[in-house]
Amino acid sequence: MQTDFTISTHGPGLTEFTDQVARWVAGQGDGLVTLLVQHTSASLLIQENADPDVQTDLRAYFDRLVPPTSDPAMAYLRHTCEGPDDMPAHIKAAMLPVSLSVPVRAGRLVLGTWQGIYLFEHRARPQTRRVAAHFRAD
Amino acid sequence: MQTDFTISTHGPGLTEFTDQVARWVAGQGDGLVTLLVQHTSASLLIQENADPDVQTDLRAYFDRLVPPTSDPAMAYLRHTCEGPDDMPAHIKAAMLPVSLSVPVRAGRLVLGTWQGIYLFEHRARPQTRRVAAHFRAD
Amino acid sequence: MQTDFTISTHGPGLTEFTDQVARWVAGQGDGLVTLLVQHTSASLLIQENADPDVQTDLRAYFDRLVPPTSDPAMAYLRHTCEGPDDMPAHIKAAMLPVSLSVPVRAGRLVLGTWQGIYLFEHRARPQTRRVAAHFRAD
Repeated sequence: MQTDFTISTHGPGLTEFTDQVARWVAGQGDGLVTLLVQHTSASLLIQENADPDVQTDLRAYFDRLVPPTSDPAMAYLRHTCEGPDDMPAHIKAAMLPVSLSVPVRAGRLVLGTWQGIYLFEHRARPQTRRVAAHFRAD
Repeated sequence: MQTDFTISTHGPGLTEFTDQVARWVAGQGDGLVTLLVQHTSASLLIQENADPDVQTDLRAYFDRLVPPTSDPAMAYLRHTCEGPDDMPAHIKAAMLPVSLSVPVRAGRLVLGTWQGIYLFEHRARPQTRRVAAHFRAD
Repeated sequence: MQTDFTISTHGPGLTEFTDQVARWVAGQGDGLVTLLVQHTSASLLIQENADPDVQTDLRAYFDRLVPPTSDPAMAYLRHTCEGPDDMPAHIKAAMLPVSLSVPVRAGRLVLGTWQGIYLFEHRARPQTRRVAAHFRAD
């Protein structure tokens, strides 16, 4: 079966949507769920869902690794017409996952204890993001 | 069903092969296509297919993040026998995707409007690259 | 079919487990194997299995790209309570693959000649890591 998840973001950072995926596969037995973010300026992450500082730190690290094109260090980049956050968003979207697959057993996602599924928004403004989802029972 | 795609590269940079994948799944109904690049010095990307500057900028960014081993900043690396572009190619191949999965609906890849599928060549010279492909109908 | 692989690590670096996966799918015909590391401080890599210097260099590069939080350059990070290697491990786990899919043909992993499957440990101390595995015959 297939569906699309819609995730509203509030500017850059991580938004967890583990529950949406978990509810969708509940009662489906064993299988495999695959997610694909349908944008080139946002990513999918499986990351720690315990201490929210981890999410803040992930954003801070990648913002330093890939500064806005308004930063003189990024003056060599050409694709700047859509704003200083646009090309860095494409770079982060290349570096971080666009698709993820998670085994399902007895209708439950086989995630580790501390793992959650996140949409990582890289653009400065709030966006509505679509994640295509596929589940195939064994 | 399974196949291999062959992609000829012209030195470093992105080569789009969305059409090859789209033609292969056309008429196959619903399912999931999975791609695996069979090399450790090239990557698979889903990226923007509108402004070609995005592809130029992606290459420029990753070339700066991972300079050739001839750069003094990379003097700590040991695997230099295959040329100054070799170990950086392995590093980029670790950092960027080696496998991708894309849902298929009614024989069409469920990609976003601006998304294309690319082979990202990291070696300096032209290469012939093989991408293993798997499609399973739902 | 599904299983879990257990991989003991000896501190930071790559541990190959291609053989465990290959043995598991041997005799299974055609299909697709998917792996998911169930931790947020370790990664899965498909990388060169020929020259062991490649593995040493990969670790060296990512240790420099993401230094421990005891490094003044990382003073802006907040999640430091679990040790100076913890938040860098999360960052590396965001940047490097958490899930991988490999086609299987006639019971054999369709890997390139020089490709092996690795667990990349990012924590300083030895750990016992679990990788969830899913195989679906075509």
